Amino acid sequence: MQSTEFDRQMMQRCVHLAKQAWGKTAPNPLVGAVIVKDGEVVGEGFHPGAGQPHAEVFALRAAGDRARGATIYVSLEPCNHYGRTPPCAAALVAAGIGKVVVGMIDPNPLVSGGGIATLQQAGIEVVVGVETATCEELNEGFVQRIVHRRPLGILKYAMTLDGKIATDSGHSTWVSSEPSRHYVHHLRAGCDAIVIGGNTLRRDNPYLTSHDPDAPNPLRVVMTRSLDVPLDAILWDISVAPTLVVTKIGVNPETLARLRDRGVQVLELDALKPVQVMQHLYDRGCLSVLWECGGTLAASAIADGAIQKVLAFIAPKIVGGSSAPSPVGNLNIRSMSDAMVLERVSWQQIGTDILIQGYLDKSEQKLDF
Amino acid sequence: MQSTEFDRQMMQRCVHLAKQAWGKTAPNPLVGAVIVKDGEVVGEGFHPGAGQPHAEVFALRAAGDRARGATIYVSLEPCNHYGRTPPCAAALVAAGIGKVVVGMIDPNPLVSGGGIATLQQAGIEVVVGVETATCEELNEGFVQRIVHRRPLGILKYAMTLDGKIATDSGHSTWVSSEPSRHYVHHLRAGCDAIVIGGNTLRRDNPYLTSHDPDAPNPLRVVMTRSLDVPLDAILWDISVAPTLVVTKIGVNPETLARLRDRGVQVLELDALKPVQVMQHLYDRGCLSVLWECGGTLAASAIADGAIQKVLAFIAPKIVGGSSAPSPVGNLNIRSMSDAMVLERVSWQQIGTDILIQGYLDKSEQKLDF
Repeated sequence: MQSTEFDRQMMQRCVHLAKQAWGKTAPNPLVGAVIVKDGEVVGEGFHPGAGQPHAEVFALRAAGDRARGATIYVSLEPCNHYGRTPPCAAALVAAGIGKVVVGMIDPNPLVSGGGIATLQQAGIEVVVGVETATCEELNEGFVQRIVHRRPLGILKYAMTLDGKIATDSGHSTWVSSEPSRHYVHHLRAGCDAIVIGGNTLRRDNPYLTSHDPDAPNPLRVVMTRSLDVPLDAILWDISVAPTLVVTKIGVNPETLARLRDRGVQVLELDALKPVQVMQHLYDRGCLSVLWECGGTLAASAIADGAIQKVLAFIAPKIVGGSSAPSPVGNLNIRSMSDAMVLERVSWQQIGTDILIQGYLDKSEQKLDF
Repeated sequence: MQSTEFDRQMMQRCVHLAKQAWGKTAPNPLVGAVIVKDGEVVGEGFHPGAGQPHAEVFALRAAGDRARGATIYVSLEPCNHYGRTPPCAAALVAAGIGKVVVGMIDPNPLVSGGGIATLQQAGIEVVVGVETATCEELNEGFVQRIVHRRPLGILKYAMTLDGKIATDSGHSTWVSSEPSRHYVHHLRAGCDAIVIGGNTLRRDNPYLTSHDPDAPNPLRVVMTRSLDVPLDAILWDISVAPTLVVTKIGVNPETLARLRDRGVQVLELDALKPVQVMQHLYDRGCLSVLWECGGTLAASAIADGAIQKVLAFIAPKIVGGSSAPSPVGNLNIRSMSDAMVLERVSWQQIGTDILIQGYLDKSEQKLDF
């Protein structure tokens, strides 16, 4: 069955509604729902976050009796299991919904299709595959989490057209244009954690926040082997957003104690590996993790299989510098033909910059999540 | 007076015709002409190169008597002076042309507008400004030559999405995709000279040709201070294309003699500066010069004011390497806010790569050509 332009518009509305909870749903997905009766929207809803009702429930509440015989559009297959809330598939049946249009099926292979089966068994018409790519992109962190049991790792950097992330003296404010930096602030709000290394902390003393009082701030994570960090760093002020320091066991206990006193969270590991940090962030429920680190940690994260997606902001300027840092350090790739090729590459203009996005080929990664 | 869609189509046809002489006209411009009578094309022509008739002459010959009362489209203002050929403006008057549509006026401020004035004085209607941007882009090398008395310097490089032009072991075949390399071959055919340094010669042993038996090959220029070059380099075979070595006076006379024996041209300078090379290439009649060098010479050429345009092919791959070379070496820029900003930036997909083009702001260059 082919979807209509109206179907696609309604599914885009679901995605728009889902984004009202941008960055607030982890470990749950972003979901939106719209109920249409006789061509008219009679109920809308989105999932605000873990422990709260699903999108379908809000839409059913808004529609009331008008849900009977109506069509519901929902960006993700309605759930079929008793979790913190009763199953939405059963609620849709009970409300007398006549037709369900699903953006994407549940990524969990163990439950995938179960909600749809329940609906079909109750005699409800189900259409799957409207604006699927948009729905899948919306929840790519959730899909990565469910399928690979790790958060989605996103490496973001801004470089000049001649491949530098800073001058040869280390100066980097700013490579990209103001609209690009604003885009990154919004991106941060949609991620559950941001990771930097000790070098970036010492050099840039960043905020790593969304810079938007109405948007959530991610967990700010600093990976530092030495714990040789300034005690007056902006990140230690946790009144704005939480901060987690990941370091090696037993290093610099004095600094560790002082950071703990200020409310900074601490994780001590025996080996400071990006994949272990991602495992910890998975255990905390993260869907997507933004790596805003320098080249050394970026290379380590790529080699460790912690990065699935790359966002490169390219500013049309030339800064030069044969020792100026570039975005990715040593990967031990000797031949250009062994370079890691990105897939599903896309680009767009943002301000005066060009943002190039792509995904690392999973088969090239040492660790298959 | 506004131009019509038909006018624009005819001017695009002029540009298409002009490109038949791609890379063959220096020091003259690329020009195409189309004569239309009663909505029908009755004559076409292009300028094949120096010493040969201008585009208008070929179009008039083809049109014969049908030129009387017809409209001629020509991508560059008809000339008004006696050079190697009689003035085209007078020829158009003599042929009884009724109307002249001009893509762009002559860039030489001393003669600019003279051809148009002659036509108007003869009672011919003249329209200027149809597809002007296309016509100007076609002849940007010629414009640079006439206005600034230097060839247009184009820096071209291919880098990975993480800013590398080679791996940290120096391996660079290939950064960009086959369609991008094909694009560069065509670009070479349209340039009058290509410049590399001794490092690129020793490391890559390149051909620097258009790889097209029907297309011209530019003069291949090697800048080498030491003249420490292999005697079996591909560039010393001048049966395919001429090669010029530029070196310091008195360096390595033995190698110089052997290169001369093979027909390699030699230019000895007291100081090996990019701007001096560009001056020499101007004196030889070059319109545009492609710099396909490594980062050190690229930085020197930029600092010297020898580069006006940058073409960056960005391949969506990650290769890493903290010591891997990037496209531009030291420019002594300490602050990111002092980076050289490109103007008139555009980009396009070529194969799997993205080509970003832009122009260096002239006011930022140390030398104002």
